[in-house]
Amino acid sequence: MEPKTPNESRTLMTDMVLPSETNPLNNLFGGELLARMDRAASIAARRHSRRITVTASVNHVAFNRAVPLGSVVTVEAKVSRAFRTSMEVFLDVWMEDRFTGERSKANEAIYTFVAVDETGVPTEVPPLQPETDLEKERFAAALRRKQLSLVLAGKMKPSEATELKALFLAP
Amino acid sequence: MEPKTPNESRTLMTDMVLPSETNPLNNLFGGELLARMDRAASIAARRHSRRITVTASVNHVAFNRAVPLGSVVTVEAKVSRAFRTSMEVFLDVWMEDRFTGERSKANEAIYTFVAVDETGVPTEVPPLQPETDLEKERFAAALRRKQLSLVLAGKMKPSEATELKALFLAP
Amino acid sequence: MEPKTPNESRTLMTDMVLPSETNPLNNLFGGELLARMDRAASIAARRHSRRITVTASVNHVAFNRAVPLGSVVTVEAKVSRAFRTSMEVFLDVWMEDRFTGERSKANEAIYTFVAVDETGVPTEVPPLQPETDLEKERFAAALRRKQLSLVLAGKMKPSEATELKALFLAP
Amino acid sequence: MEPKTPNESRTLMTDMVLPSETNPLNNLFGGELLARMDRAASIAARRHSRRITVTASVNHVAFNRAVPLGSVVTVEAKVSRAFRTSMEVFLDVWMEDRFTGERSKANEAIYTFVAVDETGVPTEVPPLQPETDLEKERFAAALRRKQLSLVLAGKMKPSEATELKALFLAP
Amino acid sequence: MEPKTPNESRTLMTDMVLPSETNPLNNLFGGELLARMDRAASIAARRHSRRITVTASVNHVAFNRAVPLGSVVTVEAKVSRAFRTSMEVFLDVWMEDRFTGERSKANEAIYTFVAVDETGVPTEVPPLQPETDLEKERFAAALRRKQLSLVLAGKMKPSEATELKALFLAP
Amino acid sequence: MEPKTPNESRTLMTDMVLPSETNPLNNLFGGELLARMDRAASIAARRHSRRITVTASVNHVAFNRAVPLGSVVTVEAKVSRAFRTSMEVFLDVWMEDRFTGERSKANEAIYTFVAVDETGVPTEVPPLQPETDLEKERFAAALRRKQLSLVLAGKMKPSEATELKALFLAP
Repeated sequence: MEPKTPNESRTLMTDMVLPSETNPLNNLFGGELLARMDRAASIAARRHSRRITVTASVNHVAFNRAVPLGSVVTVEAKVSRAFRTSMEVFLDVWMEDRFTGERSKANEAIYTFVAVDETGVPTEVPPLQPETDLEKERFAAALRRKQLSLVLAGKMKPSEATELKALFLAP
Repeated sequence: MEPKTPNESRTLMTDMVLPSETNPLNNLFGGELLARMDRAASIAARRHSRRITVTASVNHVAFNRAVPLGSVVTVEAKVSRAFRTSMEVFLDVWMEDRFTGERSKANEAIYTFVAVDETGVPTEVPPLQPETDLEKERFAAALRRKQLSLVLAGKMKPSEATELKALFLAP
Repeated sequence: MEPKTPNESRTLMTDMVLPSETNPLNNLFGGELLARMDRAASIAARRHSRRITVTASVNHVAFNRAVPLGSVVTVEAKVSRAFRTSMEVFLDVWMEDRFTGERSKANEAIYTFVAVDETGVPTEVPPLQPETDLEKERFAAALRRKQLSLVLAGKMKPSEATELKALFLAP
Repeated sequence: MEPKTPNESRTLMTDMVLPSETNPLNNLFGGELLARMDRAASIAARRHSRRITVTASVNHVAFNRAVPLGSVVTVEAKVSRAFRTSMEVFLDVWMEDRFTGERSKANEAIYTFVAVDETGVPTEVPPLQPETDLEKERFAAALRRKQLSLVLAGKMKPSEATELKALFLAP
Repeated sequence: MEPKTPNESRTLMTDMVLPSETNPLNNLFGGELLARMDRAASIAARRHSRRITVTASVNHVAFNRAVPLGSVVTVEAKVSRAFRTSMEVFLDVWMEDRFTGERSKANEAIYTFVAVDETGVPTEVPPLQPETDLEKERFAAALRRKQLSLVLAGKMKPSEATELKALFLAP
Repeated sequence: MEPKTPNESRTLMTDMVLPSETNPLNNLFGGELLARMDRAASIAARRHSRRITVTASVNHVAFNRAVPLGSVVTVEAKVSRAFRTSMEVFLDVWMEDRFTGERSKANEAIYTFVAVDETGVPTEVPPLQPETDLEKERFAAALRRKQLSLVLAGKMKPSEATELKALFLAP
């Protein structure tokens, strides 16, 4: 299959924070943001694979910044690496202040999707060809994350996760 | 503050999978499950702390099993470890087949919440006192997860994460 | 069919009261609680019967206590008596104060469900074997409620409702 | 206060049955209909009282007819009797077949609302003046229902419920 | 086909403005009202045609009045003219003040629907027979609107839109 | 105030068509699309004005293409002309086929928003400076649309709408 660039799967989902989506501090519920990110990432994975895509895992997600009621939130999703039948999608979430319009990074997340056919069987996806420096960096890190995921799932011995091991043995 | 047991924060959220929550394969959307787990975990954290709780992070979540339309899903959340102002909540998700009633594990997840006062400032929470073997095991692992989280966020050097390092150096 | 105990159908649905579910006094809408109770009761009836279950009737429901925005609400549903193809489900609704965590009874309700096959035809369900004193009391009262229901629907003459008649003739 | 007629509170809520509101047999969920009826009845009670109204109780509701996906459902609500601070609202639910347009009665329900001021304290409401034969019949029956409700709540002795008692002693 | 009157398709959809439907000024979102009007108009078109109806276009809609949170909103829809396979539906939207009950016109809108069979192919609909003066006036204006719509879509030359042309040439 | 370009207000809202948003033909409800477009256009108007924005009117919208369940829909909104306190927003809606990924124009729409302060009073907005040919064409046409809107609202005599008049008098 022909490789695709991250740009070909780029998905922008801009929407407001509505009252029904906020917690007692009037900030967006974490769970609501997780659901929005899942929909955006799923579309990016589908644009890369042209297949039905199902969520396989969510990597560590940190909610560093509260997103207040009335903010405009933009979820930007791009495939960051493709494996045989799965794709890692990197999400950058931006928020705009309701009054000043100032735009700032709200958080990042990484989801993994599997491409499947109509009966749910995994199918192959095109490779990813990163272009920018940031895309190349995320592409490289995706392999470490996959090893970590396999280690945590008990499907790879820590001693075999060479990339990860190097990280912890560095002086 | 008096320690509390995991049982004191135990939260059971049982509900059906409705048509509006399913993907093209007629299975529950990953994002929808993430949102349900966030609400259940938030209640467990509130029961432990008696404070407003906000989602701080979501640990790695693997979606190993598809949950079909019409299934009954039970999200079970219990605080697995308390730090100074934050709490790790462990979630077990069970599904029941619509016809046979057979109950099986759908997936696990780990969320972290911070307790805050009405102005959003973090406040102290009671320590956790695990009781069962499984609770003790999860309590111990929570420290490793916290170190990993700090390492990934660039707030701790890999070489200082003693618990983690041991894991990767084990023969 | 083998009898089942109320415990085998016990269903706990714990969730928050969100802003979109409240009336102008910032309390949970009665209609919203009726819908939650219907879902919980339907799951309990399905757990007892292992069949598709459809709501047949709702008994008198009193809303004695307002449930404020931000409360945690637990709906607990258990089958209280099984007839040939129908089941009475008893619901206890508990609320927890957002700040103190104090738990109190919000209200009770009784729903009746019919078990049906895939074409909508009623099918037999297992008998119920009550265990605790409360379960036995509710089991006994279910018969009176069924008579009242038949009288109100014009399907039984008041004079034939022997259990009910005794109630009104007692000194 | 000036009496009002049932017609002055008449409320018509016509809407479709959407896919997200249906059970596994593709019929409207009982709980969804209960919630729609609560909103319609609440508006009727507000039109009668010009006050905030909160659901006090739901009388026995029978779901005799399944309402299929795609049907048009009309909920018609009118105040059937006013007491000092509460109002009984009678609901007639009609369904129209998606293809033939044939209109038939789906079910009936009776809700009771209390009028309150901005602090939640019950306030007086105007009396009801029924006009048609059906309105007069429902007006009379409302008193029996109120007695039954008080008896079931343990607030009136069955022997004092004179209207009800007569019903069960009739030959 | 037998002509039908506007009254035969008259649809009343009365409902409250809930918190999840309001903008930062606590008024009903324009988009939410557009969606309610679409559902009401679609039912009116179906009542006229006894067919599946799909939205073909929305005419110019002006939002002259803000509709505050807690208002009761009534959408009234009636078919105003039938063409071969399409129907123009006129909507009048009324709002009632939450405290005084005062009823006033919130806005008007005009939607056009096409009747289709189960495969999506347009099918003929009965002619409309207006009765009241207002219905006759709207019936006549519908033709001008159809011309304007065709002109704007580039399907009719402005010079051929005789009714419209007269309007702009009037002294 | 400094003029802004259409690009500064450009808003992309990409999302899926979910089962709860579809009509009996399994296509996106017109009303649902109108609501999505209203949210996207409102964000574009806010990005241009840095104010709260409320929907003033919706221009003629034609639904030429059905959008099937499972499609990916992208709503693209840009301010097309700014008047003193109002802004015209032009929307282009794109759909992607679920299987082939083929992207096509689904429809266009034009909404008008007013910028208001916290008390709802209209406030001035920056002028718009179109850049591309298409933006310039839409900028010019916006004046004709404003005249038409004033004529239809009875606020301008047809004979004074010089731009419009020319259109209908052209040979």
